[in-house]
Amino acid sequence: MRDAYHEELDSIGDSLVDMARLVGSAIGRATTAILDADLKLAESVIEGDQRVDELHHDLEARAIALLARQQPVATDLRIVVTSLRMSADLERSGDLAQHVAKLARLRYPANAIPHDLHATVLEMGQLAQRLMAKAAEVIITKDVDLALQLEQDDDEMDLLHRTIFQHLLDDRWKHGIETAVDVTLLGRYYERYADHAVAVAKRVVFLVTGEHADDLQPDIQPVTGAEGA
Amino acid sequence: MRDAYHEELDSIGDSLVDMARLVGSAIGRATTAILDADLKLAESVIEGDQRVDELHHDLEARAIALLARQQPVATDLRIVVTSLRMSADLERSGDLAQHVAKLARLRYPANAIPHDLHATVLEMGQLAQRLMAKAAEVIITKDVDLALQLEQDDDEMDLLHRTIFQHLLDDRWKHGIETAVDVTLLGRYYERYADHAVAVAKRVVFLVTGEHADDLQPDIQPVTGAEGA
Repeated sequence: MRDAYHEELDSIGDSLVDMARLVGSAIGRATTAILDADLKLAESVIEGDQRVDELHHDLEARAIALLARQQPVATDLRIVVTSLRMSADLERSGDLAQHVAKLARLRYPANAIPHDLHATVLEMGQLAQRLMAKAAEVIITKDVDLALQLEQDDDEMDLLHRTIFQHLLDDRWKHGIETAVDVTLLGRYYERYADHAVAVAKRVVFLVTGEHADDLQPDIQPVTGAEGA
Repeated sequence: MRDAYHEELDSIGDSLVDMARLVGSAIGRATTAILDADLKLAESVIEGDQRVDELHHDLEARAIALLARQQPVATDLRIVVTSLRMSADLERSGDLAQHVAKLARLRYPANAIPHDLHATVLEMGQLAQRLMAKAAEVIITKDVDLALQLEQDDDEMDLLHRTIFQHLLDDRWKHGIETAVDVTLLGRYYERYADHAVAVAKRVVFLVTGEHADDLQPDIQPVTGAEGA
């Protein structure tokens, strides 16, 4: 049997998994909402983010209470501090899913995404959701190999992001500036969402191996030029 | 005389102020670099971010060591945990300043910003730098009133961001899609930078008053439509 202390530590891990599941579902639903111009679905994502914020604040309070009461050291201390960071990543991912949904709502009843970009946006949304599902699995299993896989998936996101820019900078772009602005921001939301999913997985690697990834929060650079990255 | 423990706590505060000063200077220099198409200056900002990352990792290690060794409770525990969060905000602000500089480098020798937007971008850069200078002052003085001022300054940033969108969506926009994409991302970098400066100040408010701001990390929504926010 586990003592109360380790039960509390486990329950913090459970909350992280709950958050990852919620924000994974949120990015999937937000993507559907923006592709289908579905206002109701968009609003459910926007409202649903409150639950993620609540879980985040609750987890923070419990982690701090645990630090105060139990004064963990070594590995246990590292788990608690790292959990705080993962919770912040997940909370921010929820915000980004919410941004996608807000863009769908802003343009409703119009469709924010031109038809020739639907397939790419769908892929970005699916990939983002898959990344977060894997991040949740990494939290549960502490599987370092799976965690490292997320970085490769993230390369795929970079490629999709580049595809978006290729469309934007194609001379045949005929959707105007407003849509270009929307699509630019949308690309960035998915990219940043993926970065946070990868960061969550990397933090687990740090916990397991004790090795700090050099770049905990990878981020995109402007890649709009023909120069590439 | 202060004991070793409180000296270490103070030195963590000093590091936060150092970080805020570095990233404040970085956003100012990055803004000059992008307005003047100054490659050398851009590269100094890009390289300089390494120092911010080092301070961030060093601060994290010291904070965790302090937790392990001293096992603080109550206010002291809150200070250490909040410092970790502020450090993450400042590190991210440095990344955003670096993004501005990278955009300057990507477009060099061309000027990334159309002339009719120079004044607005200059104002955004100056405001961002001012926000960070105030955030540093809030860390030093724990002045709650000054911290709350930052939220008003952030409203100013929203207005400037809106000005950018007005230019973008004006029928007379003649700078093409690539520049529209650049300007969209640039606007987002400044906006997010400001959000992190405000978050730092709000975290100090939380430390001083014990009251959690509802929205620790405010964020923009797409405001490109005539609908406004």
